[in-house]
Amino acid sequence: MQGTMLYGPRDIRFEHRPDPTITKPTDAILRLSATCVCGSDLWPYRGIAQLKQPTPMGHEYCGIVEEVGKEVRNIKSGQFVVGSFAASDNTCVICKDGYQSSCVQREFMSTAQASLLRVPLADGTLVATRDLPPKELIPSLLAASDVLGTGWFAADAANVKPGTTAVVVGDGAVGLLAVLSAKQMGAERIIAMSRHEARQKLAREFGATDIVSERGDEGIARIKDLTNGIGADSVCECVGAQESMMQAIRSTRPGGYVSYVGVPHGVELDGEQLFYAEIHLHGGPAPVRRYLPDLINLVLTEKINPGKVFDLTLPLDQVAEGYRAMDERRAIKALLRP
Amino acid sequence: MQGTMLYGPRDIRFEHRPDPTITKPTDAILRLSATCVCGSDLWPYRGIAQLKQPTPMGHEYCGIVEEVGKEVRNIKSGQFVVGSFAASDNTCVICKDGYQSSCVQREFMSTAQASLLRVPLADGTLVATRDLPPKELIPSLLAASDVLGTGWFAADAANVKPGTTAVVVGDGAVGLLAVLSAKQMGAERIIAMSRHEARQKLAREFGATDIVSERGDEGIARIKDLTNGIGADSVCECVGAQESMMQAIRSTRPGGYVSYVGVPHGVELDGEQLFYAEIHLHGGPAPVRRYLPDLINLVLTEKINPGKVFDLTLPLDQVAEGYRAMDERRAIKALLRP
Repeated sequence: MQGTMLYGPRDIRFEHRPDPTITKPTDAILRLSATCVCGSDLWPYRGIAQLKQPTPMGHEYCGIVEEVGKEVRNIKSGQFVVGSFAASDNTCVICKDGYQSSCVQREFMSTAQASLLRVPLADGTLVATRDLPPKELIPSLLAASDVLGTGWFAADAANVKPGTTAVVVGDGAVGLLAVLSAKQMGAERIIAMSRHEARQKLAREFGATDIVSERGDEGIARIKDLTNGIGADSVCECVGAQESMMQAIRSTRPGGYVSYVGVPHGVELDGEQLFYAEIHLHGGPAPVRRYLPDLINLVLTEKINPGKVFDLTLPLDQVAEGYRAMDERRAIKALLRP
Repeated sequence: MQGTMLYGPRDIRFEHRPDPTITKPTDAILRLSATCVCGSDLWPYRGIAQLKQPTPMGHEYCGIVEEVGKEVRNIKSGQFVVGSFAASDNTCVICKDGYQSSCVQREFMSTAQASLLRVPLADGTLVATRDLPPKELIPSLLAASDVLGTGWFAADAANVKPGTTAVVVGDGAVGLLAVLSAKQMGAERIIAMSRHEARQKLAREFGATDIVSERGDEGIARIKDLTNGIGADSVCECVGAQESMMQAIRSTRPGGYVSYVGVPHGVELDGEQLFYAEIHLHGGPAPVRRYLPDLINLVLTEKINPGKVFDLTLPLDQVAEGYRAMDERRAIKALLRP
């Protein structure tokens, strides 16, 4: 098959790769209906996260099951499935508690920008739909695999509830879907921090009631203005940088909640500053598998349309252009069709 | 009156100070029944937190109301009262949400190692008992003013619930009372980390089921051994140092809860490490006022005896010896009688 490899900063190649095979009896092989480029792929693409060797790319996927290992019980050939970027057994005590992304058997997916994909722990990782879904819902089902599930976790970990005021820091696909998630969870006011017109528009469409384009002290002052001077109940940090993390913490009221869902790069939190902020802080790799059945249902019943974050669709062999478009912020998120 | 001043590292003086007076109509003046030395007082005493000038000391107190300002409605002369180390109006939106220690009008108390004390925002800050309490309960009522309330917050913020496994890092008075609090909240297993025999004994008396004396990697390995290899549900960090904070975070299972209740000194949290730990983190100056009515009730009905943390009682004029004994770990906590 053909698959995507990153050789070094901005050096994406689509090239011949060995076909994946069943290596453990709990594996499944999928023929992908769609895959995509993630904001987190840009860290190594930009050389900020360093690679030691050429590395296969991609961790978002949905598709049709081609083959299953002999210990796979619930997933069957021919089914349409969506899985999380973190494979999990869904039976260990950590999974049972809803933290499948920290499963004791966790494996991070990393070869999904390809036509075929091996998924470990298939019974635990994959969720099948009853029927093959209509083509037009594929982008939204693909979104559930990571960015929707991660945005949902951002809103959930930030304790968004009916009537609360939520702020979303970051206008990438995850931030935009944290807006959609906060709306679904009943937030009364949703403030999106964005200085990019197309993204502001989509944020409003997903449920943002206010847009704040300022950053740093000015951005915090604007949030305080909008929240009776005390800060927001719930703030979702959807970037992973020092500035955005401090923006989030300083925009939250004492006793409020900050979530962070992007891998932090170069973030250091000062203990004393955190102490006096008196916030709740929760984050990590999103336990997408916890939410997948509900999210798939919301998509299939057309209650949400998270697929709108894909503003660029390319054939898989043009994956390098997908990276370029996202790196240059010409696209929010690039969907790739094998 | 006579009061306590810190002039510099290890230079405590008990000296003439002006009598406090009502400076705002919401103030009250108390004649203290008891006060004490706090673990947090040792930071400036040891010169780790630096002072710019001679500074009055003390923030834990209970006593009899001598006088109230003309806007004080609920607190009356002659009543016995306990207050938090943080004065609060108890009416602002942050107080209403239970975070009185971050009240919009918050003032930290700082002159309580004396015979008389001015308390701002008396109606919000102070809780009166119905009758004058018996003398033998004064130490436990004094504990409610800070160390018990702070230990209680540690257990609450770490989400201790019936049946959970809780770890307490730190065997000072706050840590020991976090053990007592976890027991009250129904924790099934309470692991106290301590290498000091007298403190281990009191921890067991307060409800600890296990003692771990190892620290660092070894300490974490012991906690994992005791928790099926995955870490504890709830961990209370009751020190405020880098090593203890990392001990706490690394002893918690993914999805578990870490609280931290001592002012952090030199603590820096690495964002990426925190991310993959996937814990909930909550802390800050304990909102003692939220818990005071219940804690006073538990003391008066003799369901708890937190006053046991005072293993040294001195006349107030020997306050300097109280600091020395705690600095040298000869005493857990020194009670001072004016």
